[in-house]
Amino acid sequence: MTDASNVSAEEPQLAEPHLGAVLASAGLDAEYVRAEGNILYQRGEDGGEIPVVDYAGGYGSLLLGHNNPAITAYAKELLDAGVPVHSQFSLHPEAAELALALNRIVRRETGDAEPFFAVFANTGAEANEAAVKHAEMDRGIRLGALLESIGSGLAAVREAVRDGSATVPTEVFTRLGLGPHAAGAAALDELIDHINAHNEAQAQRPPVFLTPEGSFHGKLVSTVQLTHNEGYRTPFRALAAQARFVPLDQPGALRKIVDEERGTLLGLVVEDGQVRVSEQESPVICAFILEPVQGEGGIRELSPEFVREIQEVCAEVGTPVIVDEIQSGMGRTGDFLAGTRLGLRGDYYTLAKSLGGGLAKISVLLVRASRYQGQFELIHSSTFAKDGFSNRIALKVLELLEADDGAAYRRAAELGDRLLAVLGSVRDDFPEVVKDVRGRGLMLGLEFHDQSGAAAPPVAEAARAGLFGYLVAGHLLRAHRVRTFPTASAPGTLRFEPSIQLSDDDIAWLESALRDTCDIIRGGYQRPLALPTP
Amino acid sequence: MTDASNVSAEEPQLAEPHLGAVLASAGLDAEYVRAEGNILYQRGEDGGEIPVVDYAGGYGSLLLGHNNPAITAYAKELLDAGVPVHSQFSLHPEAAELALALNRIVRRETGDAEPFFAVFANTGAEANEAAVKHAEMDRGIRLGALLESIGSGLAAVREAVRDGSATVPTEVFTRLGLGPHAAGAAALDELIDHINAHNEAQAQRPPVFLTPEGSFHGKLVSTVQLTHNEGYRTPFRALAAQARFVPLDQPGALRKIVDEERGTLLGLVVEDGQVRVSEQESPVICAFILEPVQGEGGIRELSPEFVREIQEVCAEVGTPVIVDEIQSGMGRTGDFLAGTRLGLRGDYYTLAKSLGGGLAKISVLLVRASRYQGQFELIHSSTFAKDGFSNRIALKVLELLEADDGAAYRRAAELGDRLLAVLGSVRDDFPEVVKDVRGRGLMLGLEFHDQSGAAAPPVAEAARAGLFGYLVAGHLLRAHRVRTFPTASAPGTLRFEPSIQLSDDDIAWLESALRDTCDIIRGGYQRPLALPTP
Repeated sequence: MTDASNVSAEEPQLAEPHLGAVLASAGLDAEYVRAEGNILYQRGEDGGEIPVVDYAGGYGSLLLGHNNPAITAYAKELLDAGVPVHSQFSLHPEAAELALALNRIVRRETGDAEPFFAVFANTGAEANEAAVKHAEMDRGIRLGALLESIGSGLAAVREAVRDGSATVPTEVFTRLGLGPHAAGAAALDELIDHINAHNEAQAQRPPVFLTPEGSFHGKLVSTVQLTHNEGYRTPFRALAAQARFVPLDQPGALRKIVDEERGTLLGLVVEDGQVRVSEQESPVICAFILEPVQGEGGIRELSPEFVREIQEVCAEVGTPVIVDEIQSGMGRTGDFLAGTRLGLRGDYYTLAKSLGGGLAKISVLLVRASRYQGQFELIHSSTFAKDGFSNRIALKVLELLEADDGAAYRRAAELGDRLLAVLGSVRDDFPEVVKDVRGRGLMLGLEFHDQSGAAAPPVAEAARAGLFGYLVAGHLLRAHRVRTFPTASAPGTLRFEPSIQLSDDDIAWLESALRDTCDIIRGGYQRPLALPTP
Repeated sequence: MTDASNVSAEEPQLAEPHLGAVLASAGLDAEYVRAEGNILYQRGEDGGEIPVVDYAGGYGSLLLGHNNPAITAYAKELLDAGVPVHSQFSLHPEAAELALALNRIVRRETGDAEPFFAVFANTGAEANEAAVKHAEMDRGIRLGALLESIGSGLAAVREAVRDGSATVPTEVFTRLGLGPHAAGAAALDELIDHINAHNEAQAQRPPVFLTPEGSFHGKLVSTVQLTHNEGYRTPFRALAAQARFVPLDQPGALRKIVDEERGTLLGLVVEDGQVRVSEQESPVICAFILEPVQGEGGIRELSPEFVREIQEVCAEVGTPVIVDEIQSGMGRTGDFLAGTRLGLRGDYYTLAKSLGGGLAKISVLLVRASRYQGQFELIHSSTFAKDGFSNRIALKVLELLEADDGAAYRRAAELGDRLLAVLGSVRDDFPEVVKDVRGRGLMLGLEFHDQSGAAAPPVAEAARAGLFGYLVAGHLLRAHRVRTFPTASAPGTLRFEPSIQLSDDDIAWLESALRDTCDIIRGGYQRPLALPTP
């Protein structure tokens, strides 16, 4: 074992020290020495282990629990067998098997007839970056093909006018704002120049991404621009293409944004000896990316109506829908994909977190065959991706999820129902404290009423700084050995994303902790939250 | 073990099938079933193992070899002990220890007195993305501070002119191209408006990145724009901020580019009762990023002269130098950092690949304390980063590298010298075939003369398509069971990046394979390369 005591108190703290200070200020500076199932263990002063029940669940990566024994045993088997971990640029039958297994599950669940090709990466954010890259490559190819076909059309029209088989009516010029022209060859040249300039301007427009307000798609340079949280996003906005954020549940809002952004490519065609202007959608909107259940945005499931509008509008303008199931997928909500019940049919899916079984770092991008650009494989890759260890761990994860006719999915749904009922009962008993309880399966949230006017000044101050959820998390940890955190972009909402190894005792443990916390809040903090003394 | 035979020939191939076809066309469609040290094993038709000596070395991730027994044993120990893998937002003493260990090594080697803070990620590309984000955040903070200080200065000047303690000489207006003005308050307002507009335009300029031609810094959306290879980069150029590529070894070229890009922020100061214009460097150049030994660019070590120019010019304009040691570092060249011998002193270092010991996926960004923005920790993170498993594997890697007073570094240097001597002897005996042999330690390259005029039409055709190196790689694999590949952006150069477990036999094995190959090439392919029949 690494002896972490090598770092003495006198040594400088060089690993993200500011984060450590923030954790300490909220009483969240815990150290864990062992993890099993749904429990993390701290070391007590007497040397014994102190269990902490984990509702943070690795921010969604631990659906199968900490150090799941089947995963751990299989990992050791792989290590003993000496399977090649890094053998890039060779055949990877286990990757092929993983792609096939994911296809079977996704297509069984969504009823989608079309296959999906798999591209491999290491983290959720990387899979989303790959999706962005693929969508942009596909957009460029479609745009290029449209411009080429328009160019051929223009050449044919020029030829037809030259040989007298077609004429250009005056309204063609006026329609394009060119004023009345004589229908000579010079006028046609001017017309074509005008069209080319228009199309060139359209082609040069930067790609637009669409995503719902509250979205979180990662923190890499491109994905952070698809993440709504301004604190994460705006310091880096000069680095990458921008998204437009669509309000949730405002019917028509998406269509309005699309109408503001969409553009048209012009062309000319001959019909009955007359030249007329053609118009085609310019693929400026690169992709719509969404989480079926928003995680960091506060555990918010999209409404089926919103999903329907997204599908309709995107189909209309030819924009692919990227379904980010990184946190919500792999069975967490009771289905393999959280979007299934919402009627969501993605053109792309991104999967990560629990796909690695709490040990491996793996992510997969699935792309619908009819949208797929095979040459992407030749220009996108990663040294660590598609490795023999992670691929096989992910296959084992799928085997565990699918075993006994999907018992794991049923367990996630059933545990989720029980947990939601408990959260609901707390809300019912503390309506002045708990504003809302929501989510699906083992992806649940509890939102507090705003505490910025709380009678206890430190609490009110924390609430105004968006840190109230962290105070509560600190109290839950210190007073009750319950580990959870606020959702990152909605810090008044606590997340509950335990593993399917959650027990009845764990649920009772949480309930009493929450009731105590709500009692303190309702009592105006007369009895204080358990926090470190400053 | 996963039974990959589940994927039958009738099943659709859904995992990057186009890449598989490309591999097959060059005879590179090998499947490996076991890996140990410097050897990968294929399964023979008789069920036995067929060894392949690995000079691709996981594209640089396997300095310690495949399934290094010390790493494997330690990994199993960690799995048995049930160490917490994912416990985000808690204390990670092993991360602190890793940061400290990296500091000790880097500062010992470079002689740098200043500490470096560590930010954790999962892959090399992610570490570079984090570096880009940090540099941009720092740039924004510095720009904001400059603008604020200029704003205070302008307010003070306005006050001084108003109360008569300062006057504005006419040359101030003419200098800014405003023509002669009366020195009244209205004129001063116009002057300040002019300065504010100038500064605003400077502040709005997108950040510029600088990197040498031939650079490779990853394939995520931002890092791929810092990667010189046009095929990788240009399809995605609308997605992220752009780099300017600096030619290698053209003294003055960097300064010329910097002079084209740099900008000035204006302000006003009072001196001896007279208002005068001040100028300050506007931080538009966000960072200079480089590999000390370019990997995918063809194994090219930067010259000490170029390095000196980079350091001088960057210091002059206040631009941080990001040293990407992802492939070259961790001892591969005989030092922990390949830049050490070049006199390179980075403001940032990025480390990955071999840091994970051929098993874990880990990367670290080190940032010089005086450049570090602590708030970055609160807005940049990753679910998989800083995990307990990878941190500890990386610590074990450092322990193995540092053991016996750095025996691993010495071994890399010594093996590299021997291998380079062998490559050199091949070049000397086949000067009409081998153009150059270069590199340092276990990061070596062999460049072939252009074969696009070869007597064998398929070879000439492949060479013209930039695929000659892949043909040679296919021959080496099929005829000699030697695994290597061209460098990704310079496909006429073969890479040799074996592990320190390389044996004398392995070197002799490579030498005879290379001599056979060169003999075929020199003989005009009368005897053909061993390639699949089409």
